[in-house]
Amino acid sequence: MAQQHLESSDPSGTGPRIGPGGSDGPRTGAEDGDILGTYLREQATEFLRSLRRHGESGAAGGPAAEAARTLRRAARRISGTLHTFRPLLDAEWSDELRPELAWLSGTLAQEHACADRLIRLTEALHRLTSAATGSTVPQQTAAPASASATTLALGAAKAAALLDRQLTLARTRAHSAALQSLGSPRFHAVADRVAVLASEVPLAAGGGALPKLAGEAESRLDEAVSALNHPGGRLPTPYNPDADAPWHHVRLLLRLHRYAQEVLPGPERAPARLTAAAHALNTHRDAAEAAAAAAHAARTPRIAPATAYALGVLHADQRHQVEAARNAFGTAWHRETVGTP
Amino acid sequence: MAQQHLESSDPSGTGPRIGPGGSDGPRTGAEDGDILGTYLREQATEFLRSLRRHGESGAAGGPAAEAARTLRRAARRISGTLHTFRPLLDAEWSDELRPELAWLSGTLAQEHACADRLIRLTEALHRLTSAATGSTVPQQTAAPASASATTLALGAAKAAALLDRQLTLARTRAHSAALQSLGSPRFHAVADRVAVLASEVPLAAGGGALPKLAGEAESRLDEAVSALNHPGGRLPTPYNPDADAPWHHVRLLLRLHRYAQEVLPGPERAPARLTAAAHALNTHRDAAEAAAAAAHAARTPRIAPATAYALGVLHADQRHQVEAARNAFGTAWHRETVGTP
Repeated sequence: MAQQHLESSDPSGTGPRIGPGGSDGPRTGAEDGDILGTYLREQATEFLRSLRRHGESGAAGGPAAEAARTLRRAARRISGTLHTFRPLLDAEWSDELRPELAWLSGTLAQEHACADRLIRLTEALHRLTSAATGSTVPQQTAAPASASATTLALGAAKAAALLDRQLTLARTRAHSAALQSLGSPRFHAVADRVAVLASEVPLAAGGGALPKLAGEAESRLDEAVSALNHPGGRLPTPYNPDADAPWHHVRLLLRLHRYAQEVLPGPERAPARLTAAAHALNTHRDAAEAAAAAAHAARTPRIAPATAYALGVLHADQRHQVEAARNAFGTAWHRETVGTP
Repeated sequence: MAQQHLESSDPSGTGPRIGPGGSDGPRTGAEDGDILGTYLREQATEFLRSLRRHGESGAAGGPAAEAARTLRRAARRISGTLHTFRPLLDAEWSDELRPELAWLSGTLAQEHACADRLIRLTEALHRLTSAATGSTVPQQTAAPASASATTLALGAAKAAALLDRQLTLARTRAHSAALQSLGSPRFHAVADRVAVLASEVPLAAGGGALPKLAGEAESRLDEAVSALNHPGGRLPTPYNPDADAPWHHVRLLLRLHRYAQEVLPGPERAPARLTAAAHALNTHRDAAEAAAAAAHAARTPRIAPATAYALGVLHADQRHQVEAARNAFGTAWHRETVGTP
């Protein structure tokens, strides 16, 4: 399926089959508008349904978190669709709504991200100390803990407590900020626009071909992946957070590609390879941010050296998870290009 | 060549070709004794020559270090040969000399090990901070250093100074201990025995077949390698120093195997695959000890948290080098078993 859209983005293949406006192709511009409109109305409806559920949930607990998640999910899809298929839509309306949706999903994502980060770091500390003291190796539990293991165990508990304190505070702040956002005039303006979108999608007069625009989104992704030096190989700078940026960019482009594929008629589910690649890039982002959180915690004034030591081990561990995620992405991506000849 | 000795260690193959005492085989017990005697005399001569050079060097500087290295090299080979070919030698004499040679080479190795460890850790810190601040990525030098990089840079210089102090002190102590050992009555007794060995090797009356004993050394190595769960795969406990022991054991068995191959007539040089496997296991040992030294330094009282943080990152880095060395060993070892069908 991916390859099909790559081909349609080839200028030599777009002429007779899908012309600008689609007037002489098998699918007309009006049909493309219908497909796009249906998708956007669905997502807008999902957005409004999630918003209602969030209000009914009392804005706290599991149901509220789930409603915030589906609200974010719909906001991301609407925003991504406005971006990829911009020529098919009213440009002014689209350009005004997109940054507002990005603001909203960004604000709502913070609380969840803080909670996940704390879980990731706590589990990593547990894994590291378990490994170091050999408690996961039953036949060696009787052996005395080594000096290295003792050094780590000394600081790990304090490091866990420090991270818990810092990330719980960050999470609480993010929760308040999200609630404040959802009650703000800015949010109400977004919700009003989405409510209009649920019944009427402002299409452009001329427009462009849906598969062509989806193909361009895929080409942008392919180019960005090619620009990563060795997607499957070990990079020489695992500790350099600045080197993460191109990977974060690919994560966003892959998301846009997946959403564009959702708009097009075809199989409901994304290919397993794309899902695996996206999962690897999410892990990459999570590990990079967790590593930064460990480094940040290590700069807390007056912490014990043992705490700082454990945070150093933790930081390095998460940076190695970053590297592992890059390798996992490379593997998944390679599988894709080989799998669809 | 390796496979040849594996075959000769097969009980069904040893009967007619190389009987006990070798009386009806193509090589007699006396011939085996000659071969073994020649090798041991050579090594004993090298031992004495190195000892003389060490004395002439004034026991300091490059020539002294080089003499200590060749002295250790000969001591290890004599000790290993006494172990592998014990049935061919006077047992009482052999059992008395071996632990004395192990004591000597162990004592002499410490100074060199401390110096190497300091170089390894200093280089690793430099690599980690260079990577973190992006100075190895020319197009990104203009970007501001991230918070993570700053945290590491803060502590790395102090960590390097601390390690330099601790390992230089350890090295100086090891140097004194080595000099003291070389002047001790215990050492003179070893040197006297090696001097006798240089002219006359005390062979046993009956003995055994040289290739059979070398084959047994190889079998012990093969069994120990098989006991390592996944020589080529990633182990789940990279931070557990207790899990290093079987790898250190394989390192010693591989050394015994290589020395046994030196005794036997055949190509002068060990196969490249064996050399690569041995190199990987040496790196494994060095990285494991460097990681322990970083952890040890982190327990120094009253160090700054930033120093401890950098030592934690360094420790984790060296433990990942341990893991990488295991993978490198697995690759080299696999190459070997595939390469000699």
